Amino acid sequence: MPQYTAPLKDMQFILHDWLNLSAHYQKLGLEDYDQDLVNEILNQGAKFAEEVIAPLNRSGDEQSSKLVDKKVITPDGFADAYKDYIANGWNAMLGNADYDGQDLPNSMAIPVHEMLSSANFSWRLISVLTESAILAVDKHGSNNLKAQYLPKLISGEWTGTMNLTEPHAGSDLSLLTSKAKDNGDGSYAVTGSKIFISGGDQDWTDNIVHLVLARLPNAPAGVKGISLFLVPKMLLDDAGKITQANTLSVGSIEKKMGLKACPTCVMNFDDAKGWIIGEENKGLACMFTMMNDARFQVGLQGLSISEASFQGALAYARDRLQSRSPQGIQQTDKKADSIMHQPDVRRMLLTQKSLTEGARALSLLYATQMDIEKYAEPPRAHKAKQVIEFLTPICKGFMTDMSEELSNLGIQVFGGHGYIREWGMEQLVRDSRITQLYEGTNGIQAVDLINRKLVRDNGHMLASTYELFSIMVGNIGNAEYKTQAHDLLNEWNETSKQLMTLNALDLSGAAYDYMHYSSYCLIGVLWLSMADTAEHSDNDTIRKGKANTCAFYMKRMLPRKNGFKENLFNDAEDLMAVTDMEFDYQ
Amino acid sequence: MPQYTAPLKDMQFILHDWLNLSAHYQKLGLEDYDQDLVNEILNQGAKFAEEVIAPLNRSGDEQSSKLVDKKVITPDGFADAYKDYIANGWNAMLGNADYDGQDLPNSMAIPVHEMLSSANFSWRLISVLTESAILAVDKHGSNNLKAQYLPKLISGEWTGTMNLTEPHAGSDLSLLTSKAKDNGDGSYAVTGSKIFISGGDQDWTDNIVHLVLARLPNAPAGVKGISLFLVPKMLLDDAGKITQANTLSVGSIEKKMGLKACPTCVMNFDDAKGWIIGEENKGLACMFTMMNDARFQVGLQGLSISEASFQGALAYARDRLQSRSPQGIQQTDKKADSIMHQPDVRRMLLTQKSLTEGARALSLLYATQMDIEKYAEPPRAHKAKQVIEFLTPICKGFMTDMSEELSNLGIQVFGGHGYIREWGMEQLVRDSRITQLYEGTNGIQAVDLINRKLVRDNGHMLASTYELFSIMVGNIGNAEYKTQAHDLLNEWNETSKQLMTLNALDLSGAAYDYMHYSSYCLIGVLWLSMADTAEHSDNDTIRKGKANTCAFYMKRMLPRKNGFKENLFNDAEDLMAVTDMEFDYQ
Repeated sequence: MPQYTAPLKDMQFILHDWLNLSAHYQKLGLEDYDQDLVNEILNQGAKFAEEVIAPLNRSGDEQSSKLVDKKVITPDGFADAYKDYIANGWNAMLGNADYDGQDLPNSMAIPVHEMLSSANFSWRLISVLTESAILAVDKHGSNNLKAQYLPKLISGEWTGTMNLTEPHAGSDLSLLTSKAKDNGDGSYAVTGSKIFISGGDQDWTDNIVHLVLARLPNAPAGVKGISLFLVPKMLLDDAGKITQANTLSVGSIEKKMGLKACPTCVMNFDDAKGWIIGEENKGLACMFTMMNDARFQVGLQGLSISEASFQGALAYARDRLQSRSPQGIQQTDKKADSIMHQPDVRRMLLTQKSLTEGARALSLLYATQMDIEKYAEPPRAHKAKQVIEFLTPICKGFMTDMSEELSNLGIQVFGGHGYIREWGMEQLVRDSRITQLYEGTNGIQAVDLINRKLVRDNGHMLASTYELFSIMVGNIGNAEYKTQAHDLLNEWNETSKQLMTLNALDLSGAAYDYMHYSSYCLIGVLWLSMADTAEHSDNDTIRKGKANTCAFYMKRMLPRKNGFKENLFNDAEDLMAVTDMEFDYQ
Repeated sequence: MPQYTAPLKDMQFILHDWLNLSAHYQKLGLEDYDQDLVNEILNQGAKFAEEVIAPLNRSGDEQSSKLVDKKVITPDGFADAYKDYIANGWNAMLGNADYDGQDLPNSMAIPVHEMLSSANFSWRLISVLTESAILAVDKHGSNNLKAQYLPKLISGEWTGTMNLTEPHAGSDLSLLTSKAKDNGDGSYAVTGSKIFISGGDQDWTDNIVHLVLARLPNAPAGVKGISLFLVPKMLLDDAGKITQANTLSVGSIEKKMGLKACPTCVMNFDDAKGWIIGEENKGLACMFTMMNDARFQVGLQGLSISEASFQGALAYARDRLQSRSPQGIQQTDKKADSIMHQPDVRRMLLTQKSLTEGARALSLLYATQMDIEKYAEPPRAHKAKQVIEFLTPICKGFMTDMSEELSNLGIQVFGGHGYIREWGMEQLVRDSRITQLYEGTNGIQAVDLINRKLVRDNGHMLASTYELFSIMVGNIGNAEYKTQAHDLLNEWNETSKQLMTLNALDLSGAAYDYMHYSSYCLIGVLWLSMADTAEHSDNDTIRKGKANTCAFYMKRMLPRKNGFKENLFNDAEDLMAVTDMEFDYQ
């Protein structure tokens, strides 16, 4: 089983050396936050991830969550680890201080979130959903609902879920058929069946807060007729004490490829009592409040699993003795050299390393934009919001596709042993695979990026993103890096602008390639900027390591952008020309 | 669960229209074999694959093979399906007629082999190993061994296994430590532990023939001191009747990512009685006899799973109604259009289709070369052998890497449902993953291709392969296709020749890229040739379908070659520059 160690050195380089977090906090008026506090949180987060939840990751996969007598049983140790988690305040990091949250900047919490999913993705997922539910209730819930539910969701005493998908309504929520009717007493009766509900039930807490999309009678058809309801597992009295069970139940637990320790439930609501969040028929807008955050968190999961796989592969490559190096015998005292001496193994490890570190830089840059959106003056906050909107589908789509590639490379470095469950490398592939599918498939992300974020916004989000990266390029000191970064950024910006003239069909045809093209370009700029920063590091390993990894990225990863670019202005004619019969010659 | 239907129309197009199998048999003096016989075999093979073993594929994965009281129990129905298989002579297709085999050309058997692995890869794998064992015994075994074992291996009354890998000797067999000593009576005593033994035990047959690599006392170190032994599970008397159990046992069944229905065993040999195959210390050469065949069969498994995934994705995309087409409403009678109308879904399906059909063409072209090697006069047979040697790592490495990509696209077309086990799409990903690892990891294939096949052979295998493809290009009638194919083939040939000047380190660094570069180029030539052939088809769907799929391949798949090519002449300096500490900044 790969032994997870939080990548603190890289995180600290990115946060302090590269992003200069202390200055960033100062600028936002957050004088209380400094490098020492950040490091303390990182260290404590690392300890929790490494010592408490990582040891439960393999056993959780083997045991799976189970449904026994209509109740979910999670794997051994999961509930205790969760109690530890909330007791130490980890769940409350980002919560609103008015409801007992710690209200920390995202840039402090997100590195810890990365660690949690690296260490035990199945365990972590339930608290991710709780964080999403908190955002929706905080932004759109009535004061009464907030007072009743937010403190317990923020502390983690209760968890939250998101109930969107139905068997015939996934990518297209306009088709959903769950119903709600007004009880006349301020509450609603919600009826319907939902699928793929992560943490639909668990044995960790005595209540679960379900957020459920449903239609009111006479609601307009399509997405404009969907409302959002808060439907608790257990009903409360006026004092907020649990009284009785609501009329909802777990129909079954899905048998999945991975993420087996996380209970993914079919949920049945049968005139279950609920309260509306936001206005009638405006439920989708409430969901979109947290969509950026949820999608970004999924991208982060991709990064987390990539890191875990890289660590496993690196340790194995250092240890595994097999054949001799093409440079001749390296370990004369051994019967063979470690496979670290094989160029092809290094190609795999450096692919993992360069993409993972590049994606980490992207995720933490994104986190600072979240800070700015939250704390800065409106004009600056607005620009940060635009950057976030633009980068969200890139983070979600690219970092999870990357995770499929990198976790598979992790298996490949292990050879046949990678296929054996006890090593834990194949679990990372199985766990990772969901991230490309949920919170909108990556195809949906790609279409969101090119249609909604690029074209329909008339390039404003693009301009804000370009501006942010331009400032970064402007700050590069090394002339060679600066020229490369400048040219790359401008190529991307010009190409993006040219795309805005395409018709709807060709845009859809180009969507996926544009998402990947943009990712390789932008991460390329980040790498050049990081390598420049690293030149001033007094840590020899960081200085040379970042330079060498940047060189690898530029030479072997960045050229991938050209393949994607080539397809952007190909019209979609070839995609549509194939008739239905021609697909299988029937 | 995807419903498997053998792709007979495509196979028939490739075999009859494109490869002109009847003329091919005539030329080899095989006048008895004609189109009708081939079609009859295809039809019967399809029936067996679709009706007998495909229905056992999902249940087999859920049940897995189990070890109970030291005996392997395979999933329900597996043993009966095997009895059906051997009763109908499928196991004997390629066997030597002197030992009751049917001695059919590979080009007849291989399409059936493709179907078997598409329908139920786990079930099929045991007979693949038997075929490998047959090749080794037939070529290198004594007459006595052949008389005793071949008829029963060929009929399938007994199965065969290959025992190579040990915990610390996988890619590098020179490190293996299993021992054998001469009993002085013509037999040997074999002792050691082997891992990853597919079909190490099963409940299908009353004997199993293990081929085991071990070292004799005082054998030279390394691969020159390895001998091959035939070690049966049950010992025989002089009349060939089973007498008593040999001293070998199953230590455990590996818990794997996929391929769960196939019993992958740890085998313990404890002074087990065996007989040498071939000469002492020449065991590795005996193994290499069947290496091309075994590796090709693994490539074929990649193709098989790609086809199965494509079929599942296509059926789902036709059925799944979600959102509207970017071209406007297509299915006015429905609440949404099928996702077949989404360009991005078509991009995924056409990626599956174009690579799968291209790889099928490659596999069947390879099969005809096997026919030529077997039946033709020496000079022609020798050239075919060279082509086979060159194309083997390409088939193995590319077609299995392709299978990882394509089976994952199959999940992606399904969205969240792809992650759920009952749909069967994720099983294809898990099953497929082994193909990139066993019979030599794909990194080993890449190094084999560039070092052994290209450089050390001084380009002779390259020249024979180039010649075969040149003849094909010469036969293209359509001028546009011909020019494209000519340019592509020559670019590849020139690039390959240039590589021969690189040093050992840079060759290793370029190996993986060269394998993929070659694959996209050569399959591009095959596509142009097939599209040319299809122009003369009287089947409208084939004619247009092949033209459109070829156009897609040229536009969106072939450009991938450029990314690989770009890395070929980059030296490996960037790969080696990163010091050990820099990998994780420790």
